[in-house]
Amino acid sequence: MVKVELIFNDEMHGLSERVGCEYMLRKIFLEEVEMLLEYFSRITSDWDKLKIGSMFREEFLSTGKMLRPILTIISSKAVGGKPENALPGALAVEIIHNSSLIHDDIIDKAEIRRGKPTFYRRHGLTPALLVADFSFSMVVKAILMINNHENMRKVFEILSKATAYLADGEYLDSTFNPAKEPLTLSKYMEIAYKKTAYLFKSATEIGAILGGGKEKEINALKAYGLNLGLAFQIQDDVLDFTGNVKVTGKDPLRDSLLGRPSYPLIYILKGMNVDEAISFSKEKNRELIEKAVSSLDGIDKSEEKEKLINLALYSAERLR
Amino acid sequence: MVKVELIFNDEMHGLSERVGCEYMLRKIFLEEVEMLLEYFSRITSDWDKLKIGSMFREEFLSTGKMLRPILTIISSKAVGGKPENALPGALAVEIIHNSSLIHDDIIDKAEIRRGKPTFYRRHGLTPALLVADFSFSMVVKAILMINNHENMRKVFEILSKATAYLADGEYLDSTFNPAKEPLTLSKYMEIAYKKTAYLFKSATEIGAILGGGKEKEINALKAYGLNLGLAFQIQDDVLDFTGNVKVTGKDPLRDSLLGRPSYPLIYILKGMNVDEAISFSKEKNRELIEKAVSSLDGIDKSEEKEKLINLALYSAERLR
Repeated sequence: MVKVELIFNDEMHGLSERVGCEYMLRKIFLEEVEMLLEYFSRITSDWDKLKIGSMFREEFLSTGKMLRPILTIISSKAVGGKPENALPGALAVEIIHNSSLIHDDIIDKAEIRRGKPTFYRRHGLTPALLVADFSFSMVVKAILMINNHENMRKVFEILSKATAYLADGEYLDSTFNPAKEPLTLSKYMEIAYKKTAYLFKSATEIGAILGGGKEKEINALKAYGLNLGLAFQIQDDVLDFTGNVKVTGKDPLRDSLLGRPSYPLIYILKGMNVDEAISFSKEKNRELIEKAVSSLDGIDKSEEKEKLINLALYSAERLR
Repeated sequence: MVKVELIFNDEMHGLSERVGCEYMLRKIFLEEVEMLLEYFSRITSDWDKLKIGSMFREEFLSTGKMLRPILTIISSKAVGGKPENALPGALAVEIIHNSSLIHDDIIDKAEIRRGKPTFYRRHGLTPALLVADFSFSMVVKAILMINNHENMRKVFEILSKATAYLADGEYLDSTFNPAKEPLTLSKYMEIAYKKTAYLFKSATEIGAILGGGKEKEINALKAYGLNLGLAFQIQDDVLDFTGNVKVTGKDPLRDSLLGRPSYPLIYILKGMNVDEAISFSKEKNRELIEKAVSSLDGIDKSEEKEKLINLALYSAERLR
C-alpha cells in the first residue's frame, strides 16, 4: 500500500503539481484509460452530426480524471470479466457525470472547471441547458449496446435511480442555507450519498454486473464504491479549503462561500476552528478509505484488486 | 368531418374560449384522458419522495392538452391493442414533452405557460434546470414497465432519437438570427421536424408498436403523426401572431419578437404582408392536416380512426 505514495512523490519530481497528479492516475491505469479514450472517441463520433452533440462531445473528451469509468472497467476485470463488455456501462456513467457537472456549474455560477472556463461560460446558457436532454439520448444509446438483456435492464434501473439522486442531491446541496438550518451529520451524509457516492457505487456495481460477478463480489464492489464515493466527497470539501487553483482547476473556497454544506463545516459550526475541522475531515476520509479497502475482502486477490486499493489510496491523498 | 367543428361551436357557447377549447378536447377523448390522468397520477405518486420530483409532478399533472399521450393511446387502440399496454409509452412521451417545455421557457425567458407563470418563474432556475435530469430517470422507469423486451428496446431507441432531436431543434430554433441568415423553407422544416414533428411521430409510432400493429399500420400512423406534428407547429406559429393570451395561455408575439423562425416569417421576409403570410400558413396547415388524414388510409375503419381524424381537424382549427 505504501508503493503508490512513494511512486507519487518520486515521479512528480520536475512536473507541475497539476500535471503530475493527472499523470500518476493515468500511469497506474494506463491500459484502462487508453481503452476508455479509444472507445469514447469512437462511439461518440456520431454526436458531431448535431451541433449540440458536437459541443458536448468536445467537453466530454477533454481530460477529466475519468475515475468513474475507470472504476467500472477495473471492477469488471476484478471479477474476471472481459473489459469490452463493461465499456457501454463505463460510457453511460461518464456521460451522466459530465452532463451533471455542466448543470451544476450553471447553478453554482462557477467560472472555472478543469483549469478552463466552464462549459456555459464558453458556449452560453442555451447549449449548457440542452446538454442534459441530449445526454439522456446518448446514455440510452450506450446502455442499449449491452448485449445481455437482463444486464441491460439492471443497468437502466441502477442509472435511473442514480440520475434521480444526482438531481435531488444537487437540489438539496444548492438550496441549503447554513444561516437558517442546522447542518447535521445525517443531512450532510444524505446529500453526499445522493450527489456523489451513489454514482460511484453505480460505477463499481455496473462493472461487477457486466463482468459477470457473483452476488458476493457485486456486493463487495458496491460497498467499495459507496465508501470511496463518500471519502471522495469529503476530500472534495477539504480541497475547497486547502486546494490551489493551479492544481484543482477550480476556484478556492467556491463551494464554502456559497454556503454549501461540507464535512468541515459541520464541525466549524460546532465551534472547531478551520484547521481542526480539516484535520477531523481528513481523519474521516482515511477511515472511509479503509472501509472501502476492507470491503474488497469479498473479492479474490488479483492485479485489479491491487489497482482498486491503489485508487482508494490515491483518492485519500489527491490534491485535485 | 364537419361534425367536430359543429360541436365545437355549439358546445363552446357560454364557456370562456380557453375553457371551451380544453373542454372540447377532453370531451372527444374523455375515456382516454381519464385513463391517462388516473394512470399518470398513480404511477407518479412516488416522485413525491424527492423534493425535485414533487415539484415536477405538480407541473406534470397540471392540465396541458395531453395531445401526445392521447395520440399514443388512440394509435394503440386503432391497431387493435389494449390501451393498458400503451400507457408506459404514453407516460414516457408526456414526461419528455413536459420537461422540454420547462427548459424551453428558461431559454425563451417566457413568463406565462398554460395561463400561469412558467415553472422557473414559480420555482427558480435550479429546480427548472434539474428537472431534465430527474425526468430522465422517470422516462427510463416508465419504459422499463413495458413487458415485451423487443418493444421495450424499440421504445428506448425511438425516444433516444426524439430527445436528441428535441435538444438540437431547440438549439437551432433559439440560436437562429433572422438578421444574419436567410430563413429558407428547408431550414424551417428541419427545425419543425426536430423540435415538434418527431415527437408527434414517436407518440403515434410507439402507440402502434405497443398495440401490436402490423408494419403497414405502424407506417400509416407514423406518417399521420409526422404530418400532424408539422401542421401543429405551423398552427403554433400562426397563433403567435393571431392568438389571444386568455385563450393560448402564452404571451402574444413572444416567439416572433425573439426573432424565432416561423412559417409566416419565411414569407414575410420574402415581401408578403403579415395577413398574407398568415393566410398562406393556414393553407399549408390544412394541406398537412389533409396529408395526415389520408395517411390513415393504411389502417382499417374504426371508432379510433374517426377520433384520429377528428383530432387532426381540431389541430387545424385550434385556438391554443
